[in-house]
Amino acid sequence: MEIRSSKLTGVVSLAQGIPNFKAPECIYRKTCEAIAEGRVDKYSLSPGMLEFRETIEMDLAERGIYYDFESEIIVTAGAIEAITASLLALVEPGSEVLIPDPTYTSYQEAIKNAGAAPAFFPLNEEEGWSLDVKEIEKKITSKTRAILFCNPNNPTGTVYSRDQLLKILELAQRHNLYLLSDEVYRDFVYDGLDFYSLAQFSKFRNRIIYIFSFSKSYAMTGWRVGFLAAERDLAKKILAVHDVLVTCAPVVSQWGALTALEMAGGEVEKFKSEFLERRDIVCSYLDNMTEWFEYQKPKAAYFAFPKITKKLADQLQSSKAGNQYDMKDYQKSSLSWRFALELLYEAKVALVPGVAFGLKGEDHLRICFGRSNEDIEKSFARIKDYLSRKYA
Amino acid sequence: MEIRSSKLTGVVSLAQGIPNFKAPECIYRKTCEAIAEGRVDKYSLSPGMLEFRETIEMDLAERGIYYDFESEIIVTAGAIEAITASLLALVEPGSEVLIPDPTYTSYQEAIKNAGAAPAFFPLNEEEGWSLDVKEIEKKITSKTRAILFCNPNNPTGTVYSRDQLLKILELAQRHNLYLLSDEVYRDFVYDGLDFYSLAQFSKFRNRIIYIFSFSKSYAMTGWRVGFLAAERDLAKKILAVHDVLVTCAPVVSQWGALTALEMAGGEVEKFKSEFLERRDIVCSYLDNMTEWFEYQKPKAAYFAFPKITKKLADQLQSSKAGNQYDMKDYQKSSLSWRFALELLYEAKVALVPGVAFGLKGEDHLRICFGRSNEDIEKSFARIKDYLSRKYA
Repeated sequence: MEIRSSKLTGVVSLAQGIPNFKAPECIYRKTCEAIAEGRVDKYSLSPGMLEFRETIEMDLAERGIYYDFESEIIVTAGAIEAITASLLALVEPGSEVLIPDPTYTSYQEAIKNAGAAPAFFPLNEEEGWSLDVKEIEKKITSKTRAILFCNPNNPTGTVYSRDQLLKILELAQRHNLYLLSDEVYRDFVYDGLDFYSLAQFSKFRNRIIYIFSFSKSYAMTGWRVGFLAAERDLAKKILAVHDVLVTCAPVVSQWGALTALEMAGGEVEKFKSEFLERRDIVCSYLDNMTEWFEYQKPKAAYFAFPKITKKLADQLQSSKAGNQYDMKDYQKSSLSWRFALELLYEAKVALVPGVAFGLKGEDHLRICFGRSNEDIEKSFARIKDYLSRKYA
Repeated sequence: MEIRSSKLTGVVSLAQGIPNFKAPECIYRKTCEAIAEGRVDKYSLSPGMLEFRETIEMDLAERGIYYDFESEIIVTAGAIEAITASLLALVEPGSEVLIPDPTYTSYQEAIKNAGAAPAFFPLNEEEGWSLDVKEIEKKITSKTRAILFCNPNNPTGTVYSRDQLLKILELAQRHNLYLLSDEVYRDFVYDGLDFYSLAQFSKFRNRIIYIFSFSKSYAMTGWRVGFLAAERDLAKKILAVHDVLVTCAPVVSQWGALTALEMAGGEVEKFKSEFLERRDIVCSYLDNMTEWFEYQKPKAAYFAFPKITKKLADQLQSSKAGNQYDMKDYQKSSLSWRFALELLYEAKVALVPGVAFGLKGEDHLRICFGRSNEDIEKSFARIKDYLSRKYA
């Protein structure tokens, strides 16, 4: 959708999952100091600058997560590099890696790139898109090597409960699987809800890979910096791959991220209140569109994932919505795809069709409220106006 | 050697292959402007910022290399990401990739990481470490998928002739192989020698991947930025991999590298004259150590690769040089490894044993003259002093 929308004029986009903020100002100041003093020109150690890893160790400890900065933390070029390096280190050709349906689109590509096959387990939409361990267990085969998921989940804004996490850990133990926990939205959990990290359950630490990126929390997507933490032997294997992917994470970005951890905690809180406000605005818009959408209030991250009502779905089917646009075959057979195209071309609003996140995402749309209030307001006005005219 | 040497005090290192310079000052200034204006916070397009790719296209065109910036150039997190992304896109499990012996150590790891097997073809030391196509052809099997090499070559400082390049291109054509040409030392070719890039032979462009990094030319190793250029269909395949490796190259580093291309050409020339001066100093030191070393004058890059004389080799063998140090088995059986260890612990100079670059590198040492004059002087004084005392 992002590529199509960039080719049209006058489109408002709530598609791409990035915050509209600038990175906190302290990051600019400190990074420029480091640049001017020539501290960013040379490679760092492959796992990252020692002082940065030490700060990460301390930050994790405050969250009840314990890893040794010298041997268990690797600074990466964003979360995707951490995921790809981990997968390349852990899977063989023909391995299977389990991922939730629906979840972040790039996981599938990262798994295939590592020579393995993605296999989906359905989240339980009726129970707030929860993890159902029985459903996961059904998909485990002799080739299954790992489970990869994000918590909080993109696109559903779900936070998994302590109980669900424990059950998935026990499952992994029983079947000797690795668990890759991508927690890039950890700092945006709303309504005072408890958030548990998989990595807090240290009893299982030899099978967990904790993944974080500075992209979302600090609005630093372009800086390409994140990290992973894993038990020493596991970290050693992953480090060998990291070394041939990027040698080390960009040092200039490591300075930026170090500053972020040390000084920008207050800014993250501000971002979070902004996102919370926007979530409530989006929910109140959706509350006035029950004819077309039903939804679950997002508990975290900055995505709403409304479902197209039966009534609208029938109307879209009978009007052959979107069929006139140029599409690939698999897109033609998807209602959410065709509806998203119609909204793009007719209402000039870019959203992501739910099917992009997995088959269980079909009949949904993902709305990013990481974008500005103005864009959110404009988008909903356009959608409502369009749907009122066409599908009243 | 680098890790051991970092654990000792008082060691002078000519081991790591990085320049001792700071990056040109214009890069600092322009990058900080971009940071302050918030132009580095958001992802760029996956293949890189358009204006940067356009500048790369123009820079390549001045070198007689023609690629379209929109569809054929991908900005990467350094040369290693370009190599790894290309290999992951091109090889299958069980494929073989040919590399010269001796050459840059990390190629082997990158090839294995992509699920393929490295196979070595020997360079012809007697003919100035030239590429001998007959030797390459002997190593081609039904599984061979690509040839990966650097030109100029690390560690030998060799520049391949137009004729050698043409022959390797014809060979690749005959056997339907891809050619990955890592040209990160392209800007440091001495004595007015002609330098040809593989990518200048556009007739063969559908099988060539041109790779460059800003690390060496602009002393920007820590910035992690480089690029690859390849014919459109090939570039498309590699881009899909690049996307799951790093999403995009760090945007802050893209601004730095864009500035480098636009404004720092004069600095590269200065670096080059400095390196040339250092090469001549290193050669004159070696000219006074003919008892222990013979060498070929490096034509490019910043490495000398002297060979241990028969006389010294015999002495090292009979004195069991280095045997007392803690080593792995494969290191014990290597004379260059044991000699490098002896120089490290006894003379306090870190050099890389030639065997690290391949079996043909055995009995050699790599000396990096990218390091400061002071370090070069100190190293040679120590080596000469030590060898005079022990192996006169």
